[in-house]
Amino acid sequence: MIDVNAEIGKLDWSREPQGLYEPIGYTLAAGGKRVRPQLALLATKLFGGNEEDVLPAALALEVFHNFTLLHDDVMDKAQVRRGRPTVHVKWNENTAILSGDQMMIEAYKLLSRVPEKKLAKTLRLFNQMATEICEGQQYDVDFESREDVTIPEYMEMIRLKTSVLLATALQIGAYIAGATKEQQEAVYGYGIHVGLAFQIQDDLLDCYGDEATFGKAIGGDIAENKKTYLWLVAAQQGAAAELAMRNETKAQRFERVMAIYNRLGVKNAALEEIKSQTAQALDCLTSLPQNEYTDQLRALARKLEERSK
Amino acid sequence: MIDVNAEIGKLDWSREPQGLYEPIGYTLAAGGKRVRPQLALLATKLFGGNEEDVLPAALALEVFHNFTLLHDDVMDKAQVRRGRPTVHVKWNENTAILSGDQMMIEAYKLLSRVPEKKLAKTLRLFNQMATEICEGQQYDVDFESREDVTIPEYMEMIRLKTSVLLATALQIGAYIAGATKEQQEAVYGYGIHVGLAFQIQDDLLDCYGDEATFGKAIGGDIAENKKTYLWLVAAQQGAAAELAMRNETKAQRFERVMAIYNRLGVKNAALEEIKSQTAQALDCLTSLPQNEYTDQLRALARKLEERSK
Repeated sequence: MIDVNAEIGKLDWSREPQGLYEPIGYTLAAGGKRVRPQLALLATKLFGGNEEDVLPAALALEVFHNFTLLHDDVMDKAQVRRGRPTVHVKWNENTAILSGDQMMIEAYKLLSRVPEKKLAKTLRLFNQMATEICEGQQYDVDFESREDVTIPEYMEMIRLKTSVLLATALQIGAYIAGATKEQQEAVYGYGIHVGLAFQIQDDLLDCYGDEATFGKAIGGDIAENKKTYLWLVAAQQGAAAELAMRNETKAQRFERVMAIYNRLGVKNAALEEIKSQTAQALDCLTSLPQNEYTDQLRALARKLEERSK
Repeated sequence: MIDVNAEIGKLDWSREPQGLYEPIGYTLAAGGKRVRPQLALLATKLFGGNEEDVLPAALALEVFHNFTLLHDDVMDKAQVRRGRPTVHVKWNENTAILSGDQMMIEAYKLLSRVPEKKLAKTLRLFNQMATEICEGQQYDVDFESREDVTIPEYMEMIRLKTSVLLATALQIGAYIAGATKEQQEAVYGYGIHVGLAFQIQDDLLDCYGDEATFGKAIGGDIAENKKTYLWLVAAQQGAAAELAMRNETKAQRFERVMAIYNRLGVKNAALEEIKSQTAQALDCLTSLPQNEYTDQLRALARKLEERSK
């Protein structure tokens, strides 16, 4: 399979004006698992397609994903991303806004290189995905100031914010390889469920994870009283008022909230949901050609499921 | 000709989440002259094309233009746009960033509706334009902290920031109508020169204009010591230090700088450049079919030239 990291490394950002392009190169050089472009390539191989045909779209998906992180970090005033200062910290906020804009344009420039016959639909799928990610981000913001968020609303928000990018990566890969509409829907569905499982695990690991393997500090969501899956399960059992911020240290708050979570069994509820989403993801694969790539997708879903145990 | 304002009015922004879409509707409802979509339609008619074919791209250009204004206003901390509070003032900065992002995506969604056979090249032209606008904005920022900006560098910056959008609107209109490569280049060239003339006039009117007809307050550039065409002509004659900010009122500064400009004859230099750019714009039209639309382009160039007299 094409080495996605090497392909991203080949993109040249040493252009003028440096103030515009340097932050893009900085952002993309930070690494990450490159899951989205890998999924696009995998889906293409699954249906016997040519990796080269889907590569421009695969790279576009990764650049777009990193653009969303860049602008999200500005909006969240995040200081660190993947162990390095965020762009608005290293440069400034205006640079982060403008380089982010250019990064989105770069994603569309990459996308424009897919085979011409496949361009119109690929562009429509990409646009739909981009829209849904922005909608998800807006719901996430809206939820901060709402106390009546329901679990279905939360699931819809993370579907938009996290899942559709994975699902669309798979669908574009399948579409470009010539998969049928039903097959495209199947890999899309797999991506949706895997994404939901992934996000709930992220919520879980923020409380029950191991800092070394989680890759970021534990307890961030609790410190901010963020409405995660765990928070919503507890709130559903009447604990919302108890979960509110009090005059206490961060460590005291963490201990107090974890006691509530443990008392109400939210960990099990989350594990059950992850299990269910993973099963649904695997179920989407049954109608597809069975080959080493379907096996890889199954292995990925199971690996994600294991992550939180 | 299609009523562009009516078409923009037909776009529906009453979608959920409101926090994402309302600011887009607010921005587009503010009006403006809709010059860019009009130019795209005009270029199509000039070459005997079908307005309906180019309409999606025409609207995409207008939405993209308004997106750039939205994000520029955040970066400039501008309080007012077209007589109304800017989005980051009426809502907040994060809303302006995210709704702006979505607005760019909306532009690409509109663009994806051009006839499929014309999509690949239209997308490439649009991407190139979008990139150049961001580059122009970055150079504009860079120039703020540089004292050695030359007039050619300034012309290149305004070509990127202002002209390419007009030029690309014309080229896309021509391309979709089936114009030859040479004809596309001719209307593109017209757009470049008209854009340069327009921007220099804008610089001129900020000093010598009439507030009622200019549509915004006079003296804004002088108050900020902005490197405009006039500033650079004066600086070229050794006046840069004299133009620097001093401990004085805004009115005192305006009077003092205007005295420098008058002494050095910068108004005439600007008028000469506008005349030259207008002549070059008109010259681009000579090789094209001569019809009522070429006449309209000529009338537009002359009207812009007259504006500053």
